[in-house]
Amino acid sequence: MNTPQKASIPVIKRLPKYYRYLRSLQADGITSISSRELASQMGTTASQVRQDFNCIGDVNGRQGIGYSVENLLSILESLLFGNGDRLPTILIGCGRLGKAVSRFITTDTNGYKLIAAFDVAENEVGKEISGIRIRHIDELEAFCEENKPKVAVLCVPRDGAQQVSGRLVDLGIEGFWNFSHYDLSVSYPDVVVENVHLGDSLMSLGYRLRNQE
Amino acid sequence: MNTPQKASIPVIKRLPKYYRYLRSLQADGITSISSRELASQMGTTASQVRQDFNCIGDVNGRQGIGYSVENLLSILESLLFGNGDRLPTILIGCGRLGKAVSRFITTDTNGYKLIAAFDVAENEVGKEISGIRIRHIDELEAFCEENKPKVAVLCVPRDGAQQVSGRLVDLGIEGFWNFSHYDLSVSYPDVVVENVHLGDSLMSLGYRLRNQE
Repeated sequence: MNTPQKASIPVIKRLPKYYRYLRSLQADGITSISSRELASQMGTTASQVRQDFNCIGDVNGRQGIGYSVENLLSILESLLFGNGDRLPTILIGCGRLGKAVSRFITTDTNGYKLIAAFDVAENEVGKEISGIRIRHIDELEAFCEENKPKVAVLCVPRDGAQQVSGRLVDLGIEGFWNFSHYDLSVSYPDVVVENVHLGDSLMSLGYRLRNQE
Repeated sequence: MNTPQKASIPVIKRLPKYYRYLRSLQADGITSISSRELASQMGTTASQVRQDFNCIGDVNGRQGIGYSVENLLSILESLLFGNGDRLPTILIGCGRLGKAVSRFITTDTNGYKLIAAFDVAENEVGKEISGIRIRHIDELEAFCEENKPKVAVLCVPRDGAQQVSGRLVDLGIEGFWNFSHYDLSVSYPDVVVENVHLGDSLMSLGYRLRNQE
């Protein structure tokens, strides 16, 4: 395999979309596709597709045939989901949003394994969320020292996220799926953070509807 | 007021973040801020801040004093939330995700008003979601013709989104907050779409944790 170029964040953000398109092609029985066809379906350019694929490995398309869908999927699966090793993950905050997103870590084959869920509310402790018993946040240190989670999902308000994120980094958490409005990466530049700011997304939509289109 | 430059999508995506930072400055009693200070808190550059502000209006900072926090907030509020007019919005899909995101349209002051919620499941119809009675999807046409919603929130699987989105566009929906994996903008390039692909976000996080850092 050629050594792939280091992928930039915009390339990394596009890889899941390639994966989804290629899966639907595979489901339709399509075995190969040109960069031009793939670009047209994804609303991008053939040149962009070829540049992106240079970052992920040995995926040279063949003149007149295109890329092998199976080969691309196999490379993308290994890059995105690892090879069967699921990342041990904890959920912080078990409200409505926590309940909704927990299923992405339990029922989808996304490469994560939810091993614990924590909340500050005493009346939530002991209940179940996606098959996991909710623990009190005071149990965080003891649990993490024993079970070494790598990823934390933050479904708490900004203040709660600010208070808990330093503890989590100290406990060895390497990656955050962050639904709070606390910008972790300013204080902790070395951890990997994927922000999902739902409120921001709604504001952007409102801006475009009110001012531009 | 100077005529602002047309904001590009990346600028539009940063505006909510400026808004959130400026709100927290205001809460701390801070009345003015330089582009350098704001950039440092947001993890960007002063030059970026000044370029972004050129797109939103008459926000020239004063040498040695900086930008007025109040003036910036007032301009951003008008751009992001309109001037009190809330966008009439419907929710399609009332499962766990629909329940979690519905509160962003009802309890936050984001400039939207949830006027109806729809589901295909007969046993959901008649239940309440964020104070709204859930209707059957068959009522969609009649409801929209009478009430003219402008925004639809799609909390349904890919197939459901593909089936319903053409109906919604025909019924006059101008903007979509899209949680499904169906890429609306390929088939409907003229509508405004804000995609929240939670699965993609998790895949990107996994890629970075497994391959890069």
